[in-house]
Amino acid sequence: VIKPPPAPAGIEIIPGGGVTAPEGFAAGGVYTGIKSPGEDTLDVGMLASDRPSVAAAMFTRNTVRAWAVQVSQEHLRDGRAQAIIINSGCSNVATGAPGLRDAREMARLAATKLLIDERDVIVGSTGVIGRRLPMEKIRAGAECMTLRRDGGTAFARANMTTDTHPKEFAVRFRAQRRTYSVGACAKGSGMIHPDMATMFCWITTDAPVERRLLRGALRRAVDASLNMISVDGDTSTSDTAAMLSNGAAGGATIAAGTREAAAFERALTYVCTVMARMLARDGEGAQKLIEVRVEGAASEREARAAARAVSASPLVKSAVHGHDPNWGRLLMAIGRSGARVRLERVRAWLGPIAVYRGAPLPFDESAASDYLRNEEVLLRADLGAGSARATAWGCDLTPEYVHINSDYTT
Amino acid sequence: VIKPPPAPAGIEIIPGGGVTAPEGFAAGGVYTGIKSPGEDTLDVGMLASDRPSVAAAMFTRNTVRAWAVQVSQEHLRDGRAQAIIINSGCSNVATGAPGLRDAREMARLAATKLLIDERDVIVGSTGVIGRRLPMEKIRAGAECMTLRRDGGTAFARANMTTDTHPKEFAVRFRAQRRTYSVGACAKGSGMIHPDMATMFCWITTDAPVERRLLRGALRRAVDASLNMISVDGDTSTSDTAAMLSNGAAGGATIAAGTREAAAFERALTYVCTVMARMLARDGEGAQKLIEVRVEGAASEREARAAARAVSASPLVKSAVHGHDPNWGRLLMAIGRSGARVRLERVRAWLGPIAVYRGAPLPFDESAASDYLRNEEVLLRADLGAGSARATAWGCDLTPEYVHINSDYTT
Repeated sequence: VIKPPPAPAGIEIIPGGGVTAPEGFAAGGVYTGIKSPGEDTLDVGMLASDRPSVAAAMFTRNTVRAWAVQVSQEHLRDGRAQAIIINSGCSNVATGAPGLRDAREMARLAATKLLIDERDVIVGSTGVIGRRLPMEKIRAGAECMTLRRDGGTAFARANMTTDTHPKEFAVRFRAQRRTYSVGACAKGSGMIHPDMATMFCWITTDAPVERRLLRGALRRAVDASLNMISVDGDTSTSDTAAMLSNGAAGGATIAAGTREAAAFERALTYVCTVMARMLARDGEGAQKLIEVRVEGAASEREARAAARAVSASPLVKSAVHGHDPNWGRLLMAIGRSGARVRLERVRAWLGPIAVYRGAPLPFDESAASDYLRNEEVLLRADLGAGSARATAWGCDLTPEYVHINSDYTT
Repeated sequence: VIKPPPAPAGIEIIPGGGVTAPEGFAAGGVYTGIKSPGEDTLDVGMLASDRPSVAAAMFTRNTVRAWAVQVSQEHLRDGRAQAIIINSGCSNVATGAPGLRDAREMARLAATKLLIDERDVIVGSTGVIGRRLPMEKIRAGAECMTLRRDGGTAFARANMTTDTHPKEFAVRFRAQRRTYSVGACAKGSGMIHPDMATMFCWITTDAPVERRLLRGALRRAVDASLNMISVDGDTSTSDTAAMLSNGAAGGATIAAGTREAAAFERALTYVCTVMARMLARDGEGAQKLIEVRVEGAASEREARAAARAVSASPLVKSAVHGHDPNWGRLLMAIGRSGARVRLERVRAWLGPIAVYRGAPLPFDESAASDYLRNEEVLLRADLGAGSARATAWGCDLTPEYVHINSDYTT
């Protein structure tokens, strides 16, 4: 697992923290046999707050959507939720009308268990497309599920498909003379691309966040983090980032435009950035995290497009995999995004090594190749066309990606 | 090499034909040492008509462009050209102002050799980005070049980078009681994606085509063929499709809207389609050609986007590579394109095998897996949202793609 970037001022990392780090949240995960058995394999999970929560979510823009996405959207229309039920191993996508009934039943199973309204349950299903959910397994799993204050990791594990490890993170921040927490877990790791970069990211906070602020802060944080990662350019049919704010740590409701709101949003953005980096690093078959920084773009839209094009480029990803300091591919990918460049002013770096300034610079190719051997690699370019900037994350493309994805259902 | 689809009525394939099949064209290729030596390796080529020709071209939309593209655009402004000079092994991109001088010198070298105006020369350079052209080698190559009526294959070879074989094709068609020919050669095979799908496609005809018709017919043919292929989603900085019409086979000028124009455009579109299929099949590391047919789309734009998204999807490409009948990825990729779908009306097929009709269909998975073992694989979907259709081509994603691209400059 790669190290998180340094925490912004006033934010403290909770070691080993995840979705149950904030007060009032409990979670669990069980193995029901949807996935093939394996050590530590879990496939049904539940996360709940001990009280109704303000909720916000962002969903995939894929026009082929999971039934879970449809049900969750319906249930979030009132901006409130109290629990999340998920399964891995089967995404319940393209399963016809019976699939919708199954997704609704999943919400009902959590509601029955927790004695809450099924319309306060968010549903997530990830895995193979086009297969019915084995509902008898999910029913049994929901029944024997135990939700615990330290169950965040079990819940994170139950989300995993080809992820090599559970992805969790949590921080504390101070506001209103109190200590609040924000926790998250996420799963990747194929089908990851902008417009929801993650398949699932579940976020909790015990800060009492006003609904409009929660929605806006989540959108901004996701746009700067999860929507800036790419593993393979594909976008899942199930991608969901959802957040619950239960206010269990007390204090007055935090509204937009206040100093408290800024502190909350800093913490949330940091958590989402850490999750984005973890997801990119654990892209299918990946051995490296690639961070792409684009500066000097003519507009923020172009900066984002250029950074994402680089992080998504198979040729860039393959070159990084082979420690090949082929910076021409960096410029190629930027140009492909349609971002305006002024080649005579462009500057480019492989980590600390300047390789282009209006024309190719002489540089030590073996030192550059050595730099690309790091587990975390920075590709940086100034387009010379303005002052907008953006950061994106991706991973190297390895033969293992192909192996993993050539043999998934069979 | 895969078989071409059946020729449309009235069109006859010229066995072994290429850019010098039409009358009045000669070509050649030499080895100058830009690329590493190897059996049959050539790296500088020239193609010329024995008389001034009407010319049209389409270029990459990448905002980082080769100097050769800039020079060719300047030279084609008058709609006339007589020769093409190309090199492989070095793309002369992002080389600063000296690179522009080098590209102009390449045009001049051809002009000097052929005793024509340098503004009648189209230039193409393909290979590594960010390195100066070794002009002394290109000068020597131009000097010792011999252009021959049977030199089309040598010219095609001089274009190759990671292509495993030269790609050539030519046909005859009848119009005005004469026989005309259209010939082409192309090179891929990485960095291939819509908005110029090929790096280079050079096309010749001895039919006397009016300038406006040539431009329109080329654009339409390329949009339906070369712009519908994808190898890896990257778009080259050098992509060029250019066509010369020298009228050497005689007859009156063929103008738009006539029966002769339709015959010419059918031949041109067929030639471009064959080239597109050859390029996709020879994508880097590819073992299969994937043809994607989308029907029932709400608009032609959406049909094209959906077909291209499927052909470009690493998850689809990996599944086909592994003979994995994971049709869910086909629907995922269609949805990712943003094309509207009516899932309850969607139909999908893996070749002849129906797998989805509003809901998953039972099908013989081992028969489907066997079908995917073919060298040419058809993926087909009806979106149930309208009547527009489009066809795209791609290839499977193999571990060899990564190997090829991890170690290119080093």
